[in-house]
Amino acid sequence: MTGYSRRCVLTVLAATAALGTACSTTTTSTPLPSAALPSWNDGPARSAILDFVAAVTTEGGPDYVPAGQRIAVFDNDGTLWVEQPVYTQLQFALDRVKALAPEHPEWRTTEPFASVLQGDLAKALAGGDKALVQLVMATHAGNTTEEFSRTVEDWIATARHPKLGRPYTQLVYRPMIEVLELLRANGFETWIVSGGGVEFMRPWTEGVYGVPPERVIGSSIVTKYELRGGTPVLVRLPDVDFIDDKVGKPVGIHKFIGRRPIAAFGNSDGDFEMLEWTTSGAGRRLGVIVHHDDAAREFAYDRDSHVGRLARGLDEAAGRGWTVVSMRDDWNAVFPP
Amino acid sequence: MTGYSRRCVLTVLAATAALGTACSTTTTSTPLPSAALPSWNDGPARSAILDFVAAVTTEGGPDYVPAGQRIAVFDNDGTLWVEQPVYTQLQFALDRVKALAPEHPEWRTTEPFASVLQGDLAKALAGGDKALVQLVMATHAGNTTEEFSRTVEDWIATARHPKLGRPYTQLVYRPMIEVLELLRANGFETWIVSGGGVEFMRPWTEGVYGVPPERVIGSSIVTKYELRGGTPVLVRLPDVDFIDDKVGKPVGIHKFIGRRPIAAFGNSDGDFEMLEWTTSGAGRRLGVIVHHDDAAREFAYDRDSHVGRLARGLDEAAGRGWTVVSMRDDWNAVFPP
Repeated sequence: MTGYSRRCVLTVLAATAALGTACSTTTTSTPLPSAALPSWNDGPARSAILDFVAAVTTEGGPDYVPAGQRIAVFDNDGTLWVEQPVYTQLQFALDRVKALAPEHPEWRTTEPFASVLQGDLAKALAGGDKALVQLVMATHAGNTTEEFSRTVEDWIATARHPKLGRPYTQLVYRPMIEVLELLRANGFETWIVSGGGVEFMRPWTEGVYGVPPERVIGSSIVTKYELRGGTPVLVRLPDVDFIDDKVGKPVGIHKFIGRRPIAAFGNSDGDFEMLEWTTSGAGRRLGVIVHHDDAAREFAYDRDSHVGRLARGLDEAAGRGWTVVSMRDDWNAVFPP
Repeated sequence: MTGYSRRCVLTVLAATAALGTACSTTTTSTPLPSAALPSWNDGPARSAILDFVAAVTTEGGPDYVPAGQRIAVFDNDGTLWVEQPVYTQLQFALDRVKALAPEHPEWRTTEPFASVLQGDLAKALAGGDKALVQLVMATHAGNTTEEFSRTVEDWIATARHPKLGRPYTQLVYRPMIEVLELLRANGFETWIVSGGGVEFMRPWTEGVYGVPPERVIGSSIVTKYELRGGTPVLVRLPDVDFIDDKVGKPVGIHKFIGRRPIAAFGNSDGDFEMLEWTTSGAGRRLGVIVHHDDAAREFAYDRDSHVGRLARGLDEAAGRGWTVVSMRDDWNAVFPP
C-alpha cells in the first residue's frame, strides 16, 4: 500500500461502485491485488489490468509514466453499458419519433417514420444507413444544444431497457466502473471515445461514470452560432460533423486529447483502430476487449451480431497482446446491485 | 486567507511567474487582494478579476460555482503572447517555406512562395486568403502528426521575434500568466481557445502556460489514420477541418468542452462571440479584453490593425459589462524578466 492514500483506497474498495466519485494522487501508487476490482474474478484479465497499473505507476520502474500522461480511453456502447438488442441512442431516437409525431402528420405515411410509429423496427431499418440517418437527424437536429441536452436528460431519467427492465444508467458494467475508478485513483485521466453522439452522452456521463463532459469524445452533427432575440444559441444542424468510429477513433483521440493514450478498452471491431493506435505507442501499453459471452446475465454475441460485431478483434487479440475479457468467466457481477 | 492553502498562496505569490505550475483546491478560496496578480496595478481591471474569483469561489455566496464547473477560456495570439508584427504561426510558416525550399525548386517561380523566398512578405500576402492558405497547407500538411509536432518543437526552441529579439515563449504576458495561475489555484480549468492551429500550440502550451494539450482548442486541418509498414500514423491532409475564430469560437468551446465557460479573455474582434457566449450565461460571468495601447513596451494597435483588429469590442465592452485592460496603465510588467 506504499504511497496509496487512504481516500484512494476507500474509493477502490467501494464495492457498491459509488458512481461519480474520483480521487487522484500525484504520488507513486501501487494497486491492491487482493482488494482492487472486487467484481473481477482472479484470472489473466484482472491480472493484466492490475499489473499494467502497477507498472506505469511505479516511480523509477522501467515502465513508469508520469501522472499527467496517463490517458485511458473507453468505448461506451458494449464496453461501459449495454448495447443490445439495439444501441440505446437508437431507442432514444425511436422514442423521440413517437413523441414528435403529433407535430409531423406527414410521418404517418413517410418511411422510415411510418414503420417506427407502427412499431415495426425491422421494416423501419430496412432502408439501411439512409433510414438511420433520417431517423437521427429528425430527432437530434433542429433544436438548440441546451434544448437537446434537456431532452436527453428527461429521456434517460425515465426510459427503461425493453428486456432488462431497468433504467439504462443502471445497465452499466460494474466491473468497468471499478476499472474507471481504479485508474483515476492512480492518476489516470479517463476518457470516453464512442461512436455514439457526444451530445447524447455528455448530460449523464459525469454522474454515471465520473467522466465530465470535456472528457467525452463522440460522433457529432454541425452546430451554428446565432442570435435569437439578442440571445446567443448554438443550433444543431442536420449535417454530420464527425463520425467517431473505426479509423475515426484515433482521429478523434488526436483531435480532442492531442496525445496518445496508454490504455484502451473496447468491445467491437469499431474499436480496433483505437486499440491499435493506443498499443502501437512506445512503452508499456494496455489493450482490452470486453467479450459478450454471457447470455445468462446479459447477452452473448460477437462475429454475427448486427450490433457490436467482434471478429477481427477476436482473431488478432492474442497476436497483438490484447486482453480479451470473458464477461461470463472474468466478472462475478455484471450490473450494479 | 480563509480556506486558501499554503501551496496555493505560494503559487499566486510567485512573482517570477513560475510557468507551468498549478495548484488546485476543492475548498472555498478567497483571493488575496494585496498580493495576488503582482504584475497588475491597482485599478478597475485587477479588481474586476479578483472580485469575480472571490464571488464564484465563496461557498454559500449568491454567485458560487462548484469547482468542476469553473471553466475559463483564453484566446492566445495577442491575449497570452505577442501577435505583432505578424502572427507567430505565420512567421513559422515563412521560416518553413525557406527550410523546405530545396525540396521545392518550383517555388522559386511560383507565388506566393517566390516572394517569401525573396523576403517580400507584402507581395507574398498580396494574394489574400488564397495565398495564406497556400502557405499554411504547404508548410503544415503532408506530414504525420508526430513529425509536425517535432518540427514545431524545434522551431519554437530556436526562433526569435524579429523586433523584440527574444524567443516567442518568453514573449508571453506575465500578467496573464498570473491570471492563469490564480484561476487554477482557485479550482478553475483554464482552456486556450485560439484561431491559431491547435497542433502549432499543443507542443509547448503545457510548459509555457501550464495548459495541457487536451485543454487547447484551435483551428485544424483534416487528419487521416493509415498504416505505414504496419505502423499506424495520423497523416495531416491539406484540407481545413475547423476554423476556431469569431462564431467558430463558441462552436469550438461547445464541441470540445461541452459546457459554457464562466470567464473569457480575448483581445480582438475575433474573440467577440466567445465573450458574448460566455457572458450570456446565467449567473456571474467575467469578460475581459486586453487592449494593446503600450507602444513603448509592446505594440499599440486596435481599430486599424491587420492583426488583432479590435473595434466592436471597444465600442460595446462597457454596455456589455466587459472589462477592458489597458496594457499601459494596468500592467506594471509585460513580459517575464
